[in-house]
Amino acid sequence: MPNKMVVALGGNAILPADHQAPLAEQYGALERACERLLPIIGQGHQVVITHGNGPQVGNLLIQQEEAARLVPPLPLDLCIAMTQVQMGTMVQQVLTNQLRRFGIQREVVTLVSHFLVARDDPDFRTPSKPVGPFLTEEEKRLAETRGHTVHRIGHGPRPYRRVVASPAPLRFLERHVLKTLFDSPAIVIAAGGDGVPVVLDENGAYHGVEAVIDKDRSAERLAEVVLADTMLILTNVTHAYLRYGTPQQTALSSVTLEEARRYLTEGHFARGSMAPKVEACVRFLEYGGDVAIIAALDDAAEALQGSAGTRFTRS
Amino acid sequence: MPNKMVVALGGNAILPADHQAPLAEQYGALERACERLLPIIGQGHQVVITHGNGPQVGNLLIQQEEAARLVPPLPLDLCIAMTQVQMGTMVQQVLTNQLRRFGIQREVVTLVSHFLVARDDPDFRTPSKPVGPFLTEEEKRLAETRGHTVHRIGHGPRPYRRVVASPAPLRFLERHVLKTLFDSPAIVIAAGGDGVPVVLDENGAYHGVEAVIDKDRSAERLAEVVLADTMLILTNVTHAYLRYGTPQQTALSSVTLEEARRYLTEGHFARGSMAPKVEACVRFLEYGGDVAIIAALDDAAEALQGSAGTRFTRS
Repeated sequence: MPNKMVVALGGNAILPADHQAPLAEQYGALERACERLLPIIGQGHQVVITHGNGPQVGNLLIQQEEAARLVPPLPLDLCIAMTQVQMGTMVQQVLTNQLRRFGIQREVVTLVSHFLVARDDPDFRTPSKPVGPFLTEEEKRLAETRGHTVHRIGHGPRPYRRVVASPAPLRFLERHVLKTLFDSPAIVIAAGGDGVPVVLDENGAYHGVEAVIDKDRSAERLAEVVLADTMLILTNVTHAYLRYGTPQQTALSSVTLEEARRYLTEGHFARGSMAPKVEACVRFLEYGGDVAIIAALDDAAEALQGSAGTRFTRS
Repeated sequence: MPNKMVVALGGNAILPADHQAPLAEQYGALERACERLLPIIGQGHQVVITHGNGPQVGNLLIQQEEAARLVPPLPLDLCIAMTQVQMGTMVQQVLTNQLRRFGIQREVVTLVSHFLVARDDPDFRTPSKPVGPFLTEEEKRLAETRGHTVHRIGHGPRPYRRVVASPAPLRFLERHVLKTLFDSPAIVIAAGGDGVPVVLDENGAYHGVEAVIDKDRSAERLAEVVLADTMLILTNVTHAYLRYGTPQQTALSSVTLEEARRYLTEGHFARGSMAPKVEACVRFLEYGGDVAIIAALDDAAEALQGSAGTRFTRS
């Protein structure tokens, strides 16, 4: 039976390690990534694909700074929108061409995606998500004159980096359109780069805000919007582990909602990497999802069959 | 009776003359432009909006060059995709907020849009559409090493500019999705920056190509895809004129298909500005459209009623 599915492609899983790699290498990495999705799409599942855009937005922010004396730099929300589509259009092209090679003429489409976040999300008080290039002392001062928060997070001549909030996504602005497209024969790419963050002002108008949406939450919200039964988080490790990095580490193959909550409380998963993924799986099951899976991109099809990755179910 | 309508917003009509104007000014100009569309949307027409992105793509190309020693410049097709959405997301925000102010809760959505063009479009042999910044002699040589065609089109220390082909759009890649959304309650922004141009290779795979799609043809193709009955081209002049710029100039208020063809043959309209607009109107009527209108943005609602602008009909 076909599933209604969100597939989240982690940036590390689909891009070359060198963020300044030539475009041909980036397309090559996407070719390999999308090939892993073909068996899943071939089975006729309804699929929405989401993906990171960290390296792309980093590059675009460097370009904004380098040309600042000629062209006014754009705010982060527009840079996210632009790189959302830079990546989206590349995934769309690669996947469309691969599908055609197999005689599958399905339209792949990139939906420009915004998430409403709360103006008073606690993360705005203690922003900590680094974005853009490393900065010198002088560049740090310039950034601060623009109202940016800058933290020292390294050593040497460029120890600083801008940090922004990573608020929780509340509402997907294009939700009716997303649902319409999800229920059509199209394969939808949505919420790339985790979506453009916007806030409502006192008049009920929305505006972009300089923040980066929490990545795993974004995938989970997307799954809620389309009423997905399955959420597949593809990354560069094969499983979630108990006691990861210790001699006693144990790969988890199947986990109930209750177990997942307990493991989270016991602190088995690394903050900022595996913990938010497991939290997203828990939230998805709580919302009514049937199965959430964390797996390596290479194991995508097997994970969906149940023979690879870590599988979370309500009981 | 509600119309099925494509509204094309000319870049000159919706943006400040200074392409490096602060973003707040750009939003201000979009506020004024979108206000002109509100009466039309309020009447319940099905609307797809398309818009230019020339200044944005120009700025992004400058940024690509300025940062080239740090970040590999992206090809023109990706720059078009990115600025298509930079503008699209701004129009989407401004229009959504204005509609909400009037209590209209319609989703506005930006569709990433590609047009297939022919690899052997004659324009590829004689590219003449200038893109990006003016270049010095040295920058010209650098551009040529990258395979760019550069023409001398000015004077002084920066007389050169890159030129690309402006091929005719053949097929809208996301056509089923566009039709689905057009027939939904959403207001769709599509083919911004005239769409990302792609070509098919010998294996039937598509790839971006360094070109800029002909703007008025792009609007007309869009009208064909959604089976529009009305095409509204909004620009910065109030009418198409006979003998424009002479003491005998005459504003046209209504024109039949046959008259339009004759005026085109007689050379009444300026190449590169009014002529392609009138050609697009002719093509639209030939395809089966009912009414094509060329009008000033400020006159949008009146033009649709028939009391402003130049109105083209089949007979």
